[in-house]
Amino acid sequence: MNLPNEVTIWEVGPRDGLQNEPIHLSTEQKIAWINSLTDTGLSHIEVTSFVSPRWIPQLADAAEVFAGIQKKSGVMYSALVPNEQGLERALGVGLTAVAVFMSASEMHNKKNINKTIDETLPVLRSVTQTAKAHHSYVRGYVSTVFGCPYEGDVKIDNVLRVALQLVEDGVDQISLGDTIGVATPLQTERVLSRLLQEIPANRLSLHMHNTRGTALANILVGLTMGITHVDSALGGLGGCPYAPGASGNVATDDVLYLLHGCGIQTGVEEGKLLQSLELLQKSVGHSLSSHASKVHLAQGGESCATV
Amino acid sequence: MNLPNEVTIWEVGPRDGLQNEPIHLSTEQKIAWINSLTDTGLSHIEVTSFVSPRWIPQLADAAEVFAGIQKKSGVMYSALVPNEQGLERALGVGLTAVAVFMSASEMHNKKNINKTIDETLPVLRSVTQTAKAHHSYVRGYVSTVFGCPYEGDVKIDNVLRVALQLVEDGVDQISLGDTIGVATPLQTERVLSRLLQEIPANRLSLHMHNTRGTALANILVGLTMGITHVDSALGGLGGCPYAPGASGNVATDDVLYLLHGCGIQTGVEEGKLLQSLELLQKSVGHSLSSHASKVHLAQGGESCATV
Repeated sequence: MNLPNEVTIWEVGPRDGLQNEPIHLSTEQKIAWINSLTDTGLSHIEVTSFVSPRWIPQLADAAEVFAGIQKKSGVMYSALVPNEQGLERALGVGLTAVAVFMSASEMHNKKNINKTIDETLPVLRSVTQTAKAHHSYVRGYVSTVFGCPYEGDVKIDNVLRVALQLVEDGVDQISLGDTIGVATPLQTERVLSRLLQEIPANRLSLHMHNTRGTALANILVGLTMGITHVDSALGGLGGCPYAPGASGNVATDDVLYLLHGCGIQTGVEEGKLLQSLELLQKSVGHSLSSHASKVHLAQGGESCATV
Repeated sequence: MNLPNEVTIWEVGPRDGLQNEPIHLSTEQKIAWINSLTDTGLSHIEVTSFVSPRWIPQLADAAEVFAGIQKKSGVMYSALVPNEQGLERALGVGLTAVAVFMSASEMHNKKNINKTIDETLPVLRSVTQTAKAHHSYVRGYVSTVFGCPYEGDVKIDNVLRVALQLVEDGVDQISLGDTIGVATPLQTERVLSRLLQEIPANRLSLHMHNTRGTALANILVGLTMGITHVDSALGGLGGCPYAPGASGNVATDDVLYLLHGCGIQTGVEEGKLLQSLELLQKSVGHSLSSHASKVHLAQGGESCATV
């Protein structure tokens, strides 16, 4: 197996995880958790979303959360922005990294954003150009890359078209989302083979959900093809409110077990990550779905030598 | 990726799963479940264990279960046997396939079998020779191949020594057990690289536990290296009573999603497997750990198009 020496983990739990949590964390709980994530050595943390509070009330305190967290030098703290208004709020409080989002399938895009793909692209182009003019890093989430809850199969050409347009419009990195967690290793290979013909590996990230248990296998395929960026959420928090049956993001703790177990460096300290996991578990008040959290719990919360 | 066209699933749930279930199924429930497994198209089912009922009371009805199940032509129904006494009971009721077992690590072997490895090998040789004299198929489980709960790392040379001896003694197939579910893809590649130098791929099977969520990724590595036999338990039943923190076997339903999603044939019908899953779930009376069972449940138990 040809594996990379280093992989960058993009922790999306404070945004993608919490936006789907039934329990709303207080602003103080979020800040404490994000600070503990910073302590682990993670270099990229998506801390909140400047989507309208009417849509995602869990993250209505976006400005307060970003203002309250410790900003460690060298760590990228980003936030989701849906449009110019969201971007304005984000830039207004000092964000220097934002993420735009859309889907590769028409129906999911319509249900999620209430626009067609062709109506969405100019909005994201405008947001991206404004963000770049403010020297912001811009990430682009493309959802339903591996399957759509409404349309089923999604053509690779549709994914390619959206991803290429975002890259052309100035988006720095495309995060390829398996929104409903249906991807298989062979499919991952096929999608990446096509995209990597047009887009360099370091401008792509894999954003897998573990709904069918295949997320780590799919990530492994990506790694063997040169992918070095992976999205994950601590404890496996998250999902998609518009994707029936979707379970959480692949867990940062499980991804770390895979990566470190394969001799791949991440800069993340395992013991610190378990401390952050404990804090998160106390805040949400229920058990988390990650394998590592269950092993940790079974071992009485003591630092686990194998994780 | 170079993947095989066909893979044989060895369903171990009725033995490896049920022996660790807190709920004891009645003989009738076991027979009904095994019959439903036969209906799925599975070609290999380990139906029970002729270990002393003092050790595994859950499977004390081994003879009744084997007598009661429908035997479909072409399906191999096997049972675990620890020694000559167990083999005698198994052959006495008409079994034509048995499985012996031991560990690659001394301490796990000692705790599990109360013998050293050197004391165990002659017992298994004797059982194997008697079984072969009765024209029985003989499988050999080797536990703790990828890690031991007592010793930690297990040397590949120790695995190789045990596996080679069993093969030399006439065991038809070695099932390589990740008893505590710690294996990583890189480790799987290293272990298999060494073993495949000495043992043909069709005489090896992967028996992975999903404790850290890596089972499917490890199986994928095996498939790319020519492995075409995989052990699994429906719903992810099972574990190891002597391995602290060990969770269940990798789930047959999740393995099937991986294999079929990669275009690999198994002979197993997905819809029938979901019916068998529903029956199992009713019998054990609690939710199962497999991803496919959770997706199926979330979709109201209707036959799931994507599984």
